[in-house]
Amino acid sequence: MTANTLTVASLTAEAFAPYGDVIEPRGAPTKMINQGLCGRHDDLAKLDFADGRAGISLFDAQARGLPYMVDMVERHPLGSQAFMPLTPVRFLVVVAQDAGDRPGKITAFLTAPGQAINLHRGVWHGVLAPIGSPGLFAVVDRIGDGANLEEHWFDTPYVVDTLPA
Amino acid sequence: MTANTLTVASLTAEAFAPYGDVIEPRGAPTKMINQGLCGRHDDLAKLDFADGRAGISLFDAQARGLPYMVDMVERHPLGSQAFMPLTPVRFLVVVAQDAGDRPGKITAFLTAPGQAINLHRGVWHGVLAPIGSPGLFAVVDRIGDGANLEEHWFDTPYVVDTLPA
Repeated sequence: MTANTLTVASLTAEAFAPYGDVIEPRGAPTKMINQGLCGRHDDLAKLDFADGRAGISLFDAQARGLPYMVDMVERHPLGSQAFMPLTPVRFLVVVAQDAGDRPGKITAFLTAPGQAINLHRGVWHGVLAPIGSPGLFAVVDRIGDGANLEEHWFDTPYVVDTLPA
Repeated sequence: MTANTLTVASLTAEAFAPYGDVIEPRGAPTKMINQGLCGRHDDLAKLDFADGRAGISLFDAQARGLPYMVDMVERHPLGSQAFMPLTPVRFLVVVAQDAGDRPGKITAFLTAPGQAINLHRGVWHGVLAPIGSPGLFAVVDRIGDGANLEEHWFDTPYVVDTLPA
């Protein structure tokens, strides 16, 4: 089987900005709370739901390893989706530009332990892929009825052979 | 200084139910997603905002140790507040019944690594207290203007001397 090699970069807020938010402390806290013992970094994700409501769910995902095949991406037209790892695992974040209701250029990132992300509404993305260990994630996404999943399967899949340090 | 000893129990959903939700996998997933590699446990927290909107913030909290003094509790009349640890730390959850706009009976729990909680709107609670290590927490709470913090300082504080295993 042929496959296109997919290069993976370390996740940064700047590089990820076209696709979503990196939820991580940046700079000084918005304010100090709890008698100075806790820094609050305020409102780091654009939650965006066409209808329904926000909810907190858990995703319990099996470990992935290399080589890692990306044979599909999906998107959720009705809502954003935030992934917050409750176990100290790194996970692969595959995203794609939209090219007329199908994915265009594919980009891949690897999180650092403790980094969380929020995918903006309608952004093409790969499935949740914790690397090396299973991962338990708190997920803030849309709770509601209606069709909120579109999948695109690639004729030629992508493969990840190496990861950033 | 005199203080009342506060006994700490391991956190369970059943014991915590009067105060909020324990966000943890329980039983079978609501559904399997991602070609069977991920279990989704759906909608585990009662998000409840009188106004404003839900947001995701980060709380970067300093480590606490024993003996741990509880000299105040606070509550947020306008919204629920969920705490999801992005670092594998256990944290102390102090809550109280309401007794006519002041805290009544105090109860304390210690989380297991990976457990997250959602405090229901208006529930009296202690400040975020990761034990032994600093903790970085994703927090889903109300983003909005208006007075959303009430504090109650105890004449006689409570002290935690021991923790469950």
